[in-house]
Amino acid sequence: MRLNLQSDYALRLLMQLAANTNALCTIADVAAYYGISRTHLMKVANTLGREGFIETVRGRAGGLRLARKASSIIIGEVVRKTEVDFALVECLQEGKSNCLLTPACRLKGVLAEATQAFIAVLDNYTIADLITNNDALRDLLNLEAA
Amino acid sequence: MRLNLQSDYALRLLMQLAANTNALCTIADVAAYYGISRTHLMKVANTLGREGFIETVRGRAGGLRLARKASSIIIGEVVRKTEVDFALVECLQEGKSNCLLTPACRLKGVLAEATQAFIAVLDNYTIADLITNNDALRDLLNLEAA
Repeated sequence: MRLNLQSDYALRLLMQLAANTNALCTIADVAAYYGISRTHLMKVANTLGREGFIETVRGRAGGLRLARKASSIIIGEVVRKTEVDFALVECLQEGKSNCLLTPACRLKGVLAEATQAFIAVLDNYTIADLITNNDALRDLLNLEAA
Repeated sequence: MRLNLQSDYALRLLMQLAANTNALCTIADVAAYYGISRTHLMKVANTLGREGFIETVRGRAGGLRLARKASSIIIGEVVRKTEVDFALVECLQEGKSNCLLTPACRLKGVLAEATQAFIAVLDNYTIADLITNNDALRDLLNLEAA
């Protein structure tokens, strides 16, 4: 079972921005820090911007920052916005099911219930919960010090 | 979020065998019925056999059948045995994490808790729950009639 890379990168970027409230972060710095694709991270940043989690300050000294307090950014909400779909099995992909059982299959309902339980746990945590009183992580996430 | 194909195929095969208690099913029939890879389904059947969910009757009239009552085959148990891993994000893949945050990151714990909630729902259902009093599905799954 795997989340898509977009959710993974989105959560890392939000943690980074939450730990660097004194400075703006650039896509280039964050991508280099994690050793991940700049293009992919840019796409993730666009999604997070569109959904109101982060904002861009333009110009030479520009960069990214959180658009809301870290304590108001719910992890479940981020994952719901960044997961392309929650089609755990082929038959749940809209318009893509080739499985002959689809019309009568109860597995879909069971998997949907399990997915809701998964997301409900993520709804109990915010980005701030990952950062607050976690000095070791703050040190790791401090791009200026890095 | 996606389960791997092995879990998907395992659940379909178990439903098929549960609905066809009067006859043995062959890999070839089931693969042709779903239009899926015979080789992949064989691998899944081997896993299910090794884990004691199904058994093989050898010989010319041989085939597969459930090794236990459908009501004792818990869906969560099947998924736990057939999912290669529950590494929702890169850092949870054993020995594969390149993320610099790994030593101090709390996200791992949050995702582990969410995964447990997901599996706990699947532990409430058996293969029999998918089949019993579901005549439409039984009709679809009846290979002899198909």
